[in-house]
Amino acid sequence: MRDFRTAAAVRSACRCGELAAPTPGLALGHVQANLAVVPRELAFDFLLFCQRNPKPCPLLDVTEPGDPVPRAVAPDADLRTDLPAYRVFRDGELVDEPTDVTKYWRDDLVAFLLGCSFTFENALLQAGVPVRHVEQNRNVPMYRTDIACRPAGAFRGPMVVSMRPLTPADAIRATTICARFPRAHGTPIHIGDPTAIGIKDISKPDFGEAVDFKPGEVPVFWACGVTPQAVVMSAKPAFAITHKPGHMFLTDLRDTDLEGE
Amino acid sequence: MRDFRTAAAVRSACRCGELAAPTPGLALGHVQANLAVVPRELAFDFLLFCQRNPKPCPLLDVTEPGDPVPRAVAPDADLRTDLPAYRVFRDGELVDEPTDVTKYWRDDLVAFLLGCSFTFENALLQAGVPVRHVEQNRNVPMYRTDIACRPAGAFRGPMVVSMRPLTPADAIRATTICARFPRAHGTPIHIGDPTAIGIKDISKPDFGEAVDFKPGEVPVFWACGVTPQAVVMSAKPAFAITHKPGHMFLTDLRDTDLEGE
Repeated sequence: MRDFRTAAAVRSACRCGELAAPTPGLALGHVQANLAVVPRELAFDFLLFCQRNPKPCPLLDVTEPGDPVPRAVAPDADLRTDLPAYRVFRDGELVDEPTDVTKYWRDDLVAFLLGCSFTFENALLQAGVPVRHVEQNRNVPMYRTDIACRPAGAFRGPMVVSMRPLTPADAIRATTICARFPRAHGTPIHIGDPTAIGIKDISKPDFGEAVDFKPGEVPVFWACGVTPQAVVMSAKPAFAITHKPGHMFLTDLRDTDLEGE
Repeated sequence: MRDFRTAAAVRSACRCGELAAPTPGLALGHVQANLAVVPRELAFDFLLFCQRNPKPCPLLDVTEPGDPVPRAVAPDADLRTDLPAYRVFRDGELVDEPTDVTKYWRDDLVAFLLGCSFTFENALLQAGVPVRHVEQNRNVPMYRTDIACRPAGAFRGPMVVSMRPLTPADAIRATTICARFPRAHGTPIHIGDPTAIGIKDISKPDFGEAVDFKPGEVPVFWACGVTPQAVVMSAKPAFAITHKPGHMFLTDLRDTDLEGE
């Protein structure tokens, strides 16, 4: 069994084909990132979309056109090989789910790395705030809302949120803790009544799996990193690459590096 | 004398030609913004430069190509008419300093509005932290440093900083206060020895005017909004528009809107 305590070890295992599995729990304490790759001609609009919607789309790094190296967050990495699994889209349709996208790489591709809720979940767990889907060993429940993202060019659509059941007292503690991590979705966007943000049935998430509520708990909603992927897919770009859900990129950043400024 | 207590009143006076003067002190408590306008073909690189250098280049709003309305921060405004004075550049050379840029506007222009130190200076003054250049009724002293910004495409260059003399105790209070305003340059980037960041003579600023030190005060340096303008000018784009220094855009945002997330 390889030692996956460092981000470099995880990336190396991906690169040589040893690791093609989901990344939760790997290199604990290192920032994991969502990946979205679009051609240069769409990159301004997508960057603008992220700038206008920082809670669902917290930017960690953006590469120069054609450059597969995320120089700010992992200067030794190669985004073509260092994730466990990818999704490749043509005209919005999934056409491949490879473990290496070297053969798809082009000189005009721009890669975006976006912060992920794993960062604040680690902080919640360390503070003793329960994270139900971790306790129940399920995927986090995610929902489409009726909160419109601010559009940018071809990119538009509703915000997708993740949900964690908490007591009101823990919801308040979680808000304070998550405020420290604006580049990992930050504070919740809603606490309480799901219908107030357009969610009809909390027991039927649009993505992921439902989780159980304990007495006295209310649903707490955070902006979710699935939002930019959903928005990219609905824009149906001629070509795009993303990570396979749950199969994230391990950066060299520590969770604590995302605190505050 | 017109009432300049609201941002809309200041913009209206600019629009009808009544106001062509610097804006410090106008519509106090409203966020003032730096303006940079570049053609669409350079907009991705400039947006990326701002994303990579958030302390000197805190983005408040970016317009769609050709749209002169900053919809996030002042949906009733027109960036072609609502600033007191502009600078127009061709190939990096200043060619005009008009009070209206309607005749220069093009369908491919993208406008960037960036946060300004007036926001945190108001907060410092309210907290009783002295702001020397305000006391001395001078322009703030600004210096080129040897701190390289992270480049993006054609945009590269050193960080420009502003300087305020403070006692160490006030420097610590100022750091806490400015941490609340990440979109107005946030915390200082350096306290103390100017030579540590490549400044040879503190009495000779590269922009603005020198200010006096009192016994026991040390220089405190903040990332400065002149940085993106200097970087745009040194990239010598075929065409660009900026505000005339000190003649800022008044947004509808309140200083308190920039606190935290």
